[in-house]
Amino acid sequence: MAETLDPKAIEKRIMSEPAKTYSKIAVAYSGGLDSSLGVEIARRKYKAKEVVAVCVDVGQGADEVQVARDKAKALKIDPIYVDARKEFCEEWLTKAIRANSDYEGYPVATSMTRQLIGRIVAQEAVKHGCDALMEGSTGKGNDQYRLHNVFTLFAPGRDILAFVRDFDLTRMEERELSKAWGIPITELVIGGDKTMWCHSIGSGSVMLNDVLPKEVWMWWVPPREAPDKPEEITIGFERGIPVELNGERMPLGDIIDKLNVVGGRNGVGYIDMFEDGITCLKSREIYEAPAAHIILKLHRDLEQNCLTKDEILFKAMVDQRWAQMVYHGEWFHPLKRELDAFIEASQDVVSGSFKVALYKGNIHIAERTLGPGSLFAPEIRDIKRRSFDQRWSANAAKIRGLQFEILAMRDKKVREAKK
Amino acid sequence: MAETLDPKAIEKRIMSEPAKTYSKIAVAYSGGLDSSLGVEIARRKYKAKEVVAVCVDVGQGADEVQVARDKAKALKIDPIYVDARKEFCEEWLTKAIRANSDYEGYPVATSMTRQLIGRIVAQEAVKHGCDALMEGSTGKGNDQYRLHNVFTLFAPGRDILAFVRDFDLTRMEERELSKAWGIPITELVIGGDKTMWCHSIGSGSVMLNDVLPKEVWMWWVPPREAPDKPEEITIGFERGIPVELNGERMPLGDIIDKLNVVGGRNGVGYIDMFEDGITCLKSREIYEAPAAHIILKLHRDLEQNCLTKDEILFKAMVDQRWAQMVYHGEWFHPLKRELDAFIEASQDVVSGSFKVALYKGNIHIAERTLGPGSLFAPEIRDIKRRSFDQRWSANAAKIRGLQFEILAMRDKKVREAKK
Amino acid sequence: MAETLDPKAIEKRIMSEPAKTYSKIAVAYSGGLDSSLGVEIARRKYKAKEVVAVCVDVGQGADEVQVARDKAKALKIDPIYVDARKEFCEEWLTKAIRANSDYEGYPVATSMTRQLIGRIVAQEAVKHGCDALMEGSTGKGNDQYRLHNVFTLFAPGRDILAFVRDFDLTRMEERELSKAWGIPITELVIGGDKTMWCHSIGSGSVMLNDVLPKEVWMWWVPPREAPDKPEEITIGFERGIPVELNGERMPLGDIIDKLNVVGGRNGVGYIDMFEDGITCLKSREIYEAPAAHIILKLHRDLEQNCLTKDEILFKAMVDQRWAQMVYHGEWFHPLKRELDAFIEASQDVVSGSFKVALYKGNIHIAERTLGPGSLFAPEIRDIKRRSFDQRWSANAAKIRGLQFEILAMRDKKVREAKK
Amino acid sequence: MAETLDPKAIEKRIMSEPAKTYSKIAVAYSGGLDSSLGVEIARRKYKAKEVVAVCVDVGQGADEVQVARDKAKALKIDPIYVDARKEFCEEWLTKAIRANSDYEGYPVATSMTRQLIGRIVAQEAVKHGCDALMEGSTGKGNDQYRLHNVFTLFAPGRDILAFVRDFDLTRMEERELSKAWGIPITELVIGGDKTMWCHSIGSGSVMLNDVLPKEVWMWWVPPREAPDKPEEITIGFERGIPVELNGERMPLGDIIDKLNVVGGRNGVGYIDMFEDGITCLKSREIYEAPAAHIILKLHRDLEQNCLTKDEILFKAMVDQRWAQMVYHGEWFHPLKRELDAFIEASQDVVSGSFKVALYKGNIHIAERTLGPGSLFAPEIRDIKRRSFDQRWSANAAKIRGLQFEILAMRDKKVREAKK
Repeated sequence: MAETLDPKAIEKRIMSEPAKTYSKIAVAYSGGLDSSLGVEIARRKYKAKEVVAVCVDVGQGADEVQVARDKAKALKIDPIYVDARKEFCEEWLTKAIRANSDYEGYPVATSMTRQLIGRIVAQEAVKHGCDALMEGSTGKGNDQYRLHNVFTLFAPGRDILAFVRDFDLTRMEERELSKAWGIPITELVIGGDKTMWCHSIGSGSVMLNDVLPKEVWMWWVPPREAPDKPEEITIGFERGIPVELNGERMPLGDIIDKLNVVGGRNGVGYIDMFEDGITCLKSREIYEAPAAHIILKLHRDLEQNCLTKDEILFKAMVDQRWAQMVYHGEWFHPLKRELDAFIEASQDVVSGSFKVALYKGNIHIAERTLGPGSLFAPEIRDIKRRSFDQRWSANAAKIRGLQFEILAMRDKKVREAKK
Repeated sequence: MAETLDPKAIEKRIMSEPAKTYSKIAVAYSGGLDSSLGVEIARRKYKAKEVVAVCVDVGQGADEVQVARDKAKALKIDPIYVDARKEFCEEWLTKAIRANSDYEGYPVATSMTRQLIGRIVAQEAVKHGCDALMEGSTGKGNDQYRLHNVFTLFAPGRDILAFVRDFDLTRMEERELSKAWGIPITELVIGGDKTMWCHSIGSGSVMLNDVLPKEVWMWWVPPREAPDKPEEITIGFERGIPVELNGERMPLGDIIDKLNVVGGRNGVGYIDMFEDGITCLKSREIYEAPAAHIILKLHRDLEQNCLTKDEILFKAMVDQRWAQMVYHGEWFHPLKRELDAFIEASQDVVSGSFKVALYKGNIHIAERTLGPGSLFAPEIRDIKRRSFDQRWSANAAKIRGLQFEILAMRDKKVREAKK
Repeated sequence: MAETLDPKAIEKRIMSEPAKTYSKIAVAYSGGLDSSLGVEIARRKYKAKEVVAVCVDVGQGADEVQVARDKAKALKIDPIYVDARKEFCEEWLTKAIRANSDYEGYPVATSMTRQLIGRIVAQEAVKHGCDALMEGSTGKGNDQYRLHNVFTLFAPGRDILAFVRDFDLTRMEERELSKAWGIPITELVIGGDKTMWCHSIGSGSVMLNDVLPKEVWMWWVPPREAPDKPEEITIGFERGIPVELNGERMPLGDIIDKLNVVGGRNGVGYIDMFEDGITCLKSREIYEAPAAHIILKLHRDLEQNCLTKDEILFKAMVDQRWAQMVYHGEWFHPLKRELDAFIEASQDVVSGSFKVALYKGNIHIAERTLGPGSLFAPEIRDIKRRSFDQRWSANAAKIRGLQFEILAMRDKKVREAKK
Repeated sequence: MAETLDPKAIEKRIMSEPAKTYSKIAVAYSGGLDSSLGVEIARRKYKAKEVVAVCVDVGQGADEVQVARDKAKALKIDPIYVDARKEFCEEWLTKAIRANSDYEGYPVATSMTRQLIGRIVAQEAVKHGCDALMEGSTGKGNDQYRLHNVFTLFAPGRDILAFVRDFDLTRMEERELSKAWGIPITELVIGGDKTMWCHSIGSGSVMLNDVLPKEVWMWWVPPREAPDKPEEITIGFERGIPVELNGERMPLGDIIDKLNVVGGRNGVGYIDMFEDGITCLKSREIYEAPAAHIILKLHRDLEQNCLTKDEILFKAMVDQRWAQMVYHGEWFHPLKRELDAFIEASQDVVSGSFKVALYKGNIHIAERTLGPGSLFAPEIRDIKRRSFDQRWSANAAKIRGLQFEILAMRDKKVREAKK
């Protein structure tokens, strides 16, 4: 379908599509271009007698929530505001940190918030007796799949209306239509999605060698522009989770907020990667995630200190699968829950603290303090000390080498058989 | 056994151990403290009529090889010198790069060179009719296992003499005994192992918060002391391997040598980690590996561009197993060969080039040029363009969501059954 | 859409759907209900001036191919017949055997033949300049995805017409329409798909406790009705593939044909399982696969004899992924090719032969003859002999147990820290 | 060392070995040849003032426990008898069943009991203030490693005396020495290890084509000698565990005991396999495990019914690792505990029941009754019904096929680049 900038033509296209009508539609509402337009589509196209707008705060920032409130007035809706920041930190980010959340280099942030929002919207939809759920994802990206799964699970049997996709709208068309319908538009420099864990910038539309303008960054400055002196911080972990910053115990959310600021201003947290979307299409993605980079680096260091080799190697597979599932919209899938059970069981011993120097993009571990869960036992390993008798190893090497003896015999037989 | 500094006592301990005697012993000879002493032990303790010293150059540097030559005179041996640098680059490092060689953060270097040396020594031992092979590893570390496996495979049936371990010698005891026996000692600031791929520093004896003296570094300078201006380089890859540096085609070995210098002087390549040894004991390890860091980062970026999602995810498991096997002395194990076959088959399409800015520890990809193997197709993925009809996705989401429909039904049944 | 048995209504539904027209359509033609009707749909609905019917023999049996020939006359088409049996055996089944092909208990047969047929049809389509490809899969099953992928890869840019799905036809509707259009109908007792590797019975429509009528089985008899005496056979394998049956060397296809008969009549090869389709929906599937059961059991036994423990454990993951990919229509995916490279590299040593007794569903290995690739070395392992000194193991156990020493220390510290 | 049948020579060899002495030694006592001799070695060689013999019943049968009691008198010890059958069923076998316990085809039985015995002996050793632990494993097998790990973990710091291995005794030598020292000998037809889960026969000494005598079997009869009529049973599972047999609710241990009898007499439960020992040496192993075969087959069938595809595929890896760890003496390893957490979390929904016909080696599922956790939803999947609109799949196939579109484009580019 050709893009058009004539709002009449767009409206006509939408109105002429065959569609059911609904009496009450729950809308995942953020105050952004998509969900604001969605409210009007729910009324005009789907003839909704009532729109249940649900606005979830997952730490996108007070600004964005204020925008949502302002626009609500213009849209004549009275949204249900749900503050999910605490749940996001305590139930989602703790799991992410313990899982070293990493999907091909991306610490999976929007992947999580969309599913958290989806669950809350679905639960409100059920509570308010809605017969459909609406959301504003496009048909090229990942969020439509994530929301579809979560809506289906928590509000089974209701129709799901992803109008941008279903009426094949472009961003420009949405804009024109919004203007024509009198919906205020908040201009954003570049598309993006803010979460406290990772800020996604221009997802899906960054070309191969695009360089992003400075004003897109929330926290990050390029290393060259960062201070010329390292900034030192201390962080303490308990059971895999940061609990203390610079000597002060505080909630995880506060630690993340502070690390984003201090990490970002020291050039830490830049990500520029190719990412395989849910449908296997690759996009170039630019993210900033200073706190995530610091926390995940330290968490991994701590695991290498507190977990056995076998755990580290197997958990790498579990962690990979975890990130893959979360990215693919399967937070609530039974397998994801089982992976969490594995991960959870491994973290009791993962405690310790760090002195870290942040300097122009570098996260330098300057000092480690070990917790009781540490497996570092230099008194046994040190070659200068005499703790286990190194002569034992002669036999250990022989036993370990037995299979190579057999392989040598076998190779000889195989060579002879070939003659 | 208590450490002693009395060479007479040490000698007596060695001589009183029951032992077989041999007519011809092949010694893995490097000119270092251990292998030089080994030559004498072969003569004095094992009564070897002939010592076949084999000195393999795997890129440890001309200095070290010169030391080996000088000492050979003092030891009155005429070593066989084998220049294995080309083989190491072409047969070993290419495989390592394609495998993103990474064992818990360590790019597995010594792990490889020891096995390459082991194979060459074993082959010389067979060629020269030796009845035993000698090497100077301690009984606490990894090398004894690596060499044992390789010796067993390539010179089956010969005895393996790891005298440091077998006579339970400490480094200090070796030193005293060498002095007493008139073997020249080359003092090293701190123990270590140099390879062109990674320089291992003080393996096994770095305590928790030790800070290393400046003079140990071959290439690396701390970011703060690196230049205040980024240094730009370009690198081209073909079939997974760097083939071009700054516009000039050159052998892999040359590229690595140059990247170690330029990377190191810009603060790139520092590793400080806990590592699980073959026997599952943890040590803190400090490495410098500027070239490896640059090459592996770019190789991974290229793979994310040229391999499908499924390949990236599965190859991560293959790569992990690869590094684990190589680290554990199983380079010549059949499974390792099969992992190589997998990896090799994936690299045909992994081509492309980069402009990279090195700056105070940062490896910043400034520009990418895609090869024909690239799977990045923004013309299909871009949300601003109309290449595939986004409305298709509505049904794709429904089909993908079917299992969540069933899960919702199941959850309801389970809840009801519990009542 | 409600099912109707009025052919006029069905025809009207089809004709009223908006659709493009094509000049030349390649049809995957088997002579079955679906593909025969497809030929007419290509003409009547899609206005094809020419139908390029491609009939591929993948060992479904001479009867089925004869049906295809007979119907071709009635349909006034002159199909291209491609005998792919040799390729199926030599290029597909050899890979399947080496991969121990097993998707949740199903030896992946139709999964393969559909993709082989798809590739051949696509290649013919390109050769003959077709502008569309047609196939007769339903919209509930797996084949549509398999064929779609293969058509897309080998005939990119052409439209794919899966008319049963796209016009939402039921089997009954197809039947009525065929009758009305004068297309001869071959009645089958129960739906199914025959390949030499596995006969699929009533896929997708077998209810929970359905018992199948006797006449559906091609080879299998229930154990109770099988002979009261074991039937002995001998089979020899080379490089993972059966090459000899009862002392006679013969092509793989002949061995499979014979094993289906002899295995089946002795009650071997019955499969009754829940299977997760490509879209994650479960179906109960009944298969008979006597040859596959015998060959795969012996192949696994041989691998346990000729592969090291590490290979066996890792290859299990590779094999699982292989079967998953093949089942999901990804035979030609790059990852599948890389898995093949791994598997191929492991099979050189997998040789040996068996005397097997088949008896009422049992495949009893009565005797094994080892090839040169065997790793069974009882002279080393046997506890009654003295080949390696068992006292070595004391130290090996200590070294192996070191990590438990550290774990014991750690557990104590953790307990104390909790107080 | 050459085997000798002169008890004086054997005694001399043992007595001349340098060894520490101990005041109190805990002996893992079973009444068998090894552990009975051990009691005397503890006294004569190690000068133990007190022997704390610990005899653990893990379901090896009342006969064996009676032998232990009888011999205790002769040995003048007063063993601590611990009945661990309940714990073995409730804490160990439940985990094994949920993990589909399968190490290369072996359901890991002795692997478990040895570690359970080891833990109990170690705890008694600590309780009674022993300064050493003794056990009678040989130096060729797996048990020495299993017991070493468990002793080390639960009685850290004590010496471990595996005298058969440490004095390099053969079975014949043990027998001669026992006779000479007046220790009664219980003759066994063939070496073996009985547990309720699996009976191991002649481990480590079965040659390639040995056929075992009839009298070795506890439960199993060859299919040809089994009854000519199927025997029907019903079994009900809850949360992955059998809880009901033939309509009667009973403890797991009773179900297993009964299934061993009924399965065995119908020819079920025969295992003949190559097994990779802990040190990677292969042995041919013959087991009988009728109950394990029946339960594990049904448990897997149930999982394929109640778990999603993603769970089934990933759990296969978890299960494989589980069995590997248990086999390798790592029941108490942290990774094993984490695998258990994963597995446990998956089993809530694994309920349902079966009617099964046992007939001459066949376990035929005749009828299934689904529990609320079933994911089998034929009302959605059935191709004859109209539950989801099959036309949706057209777009799902397109989206799923997008990556093949890109691969086709890429392949073209690669081909062109090669020209």
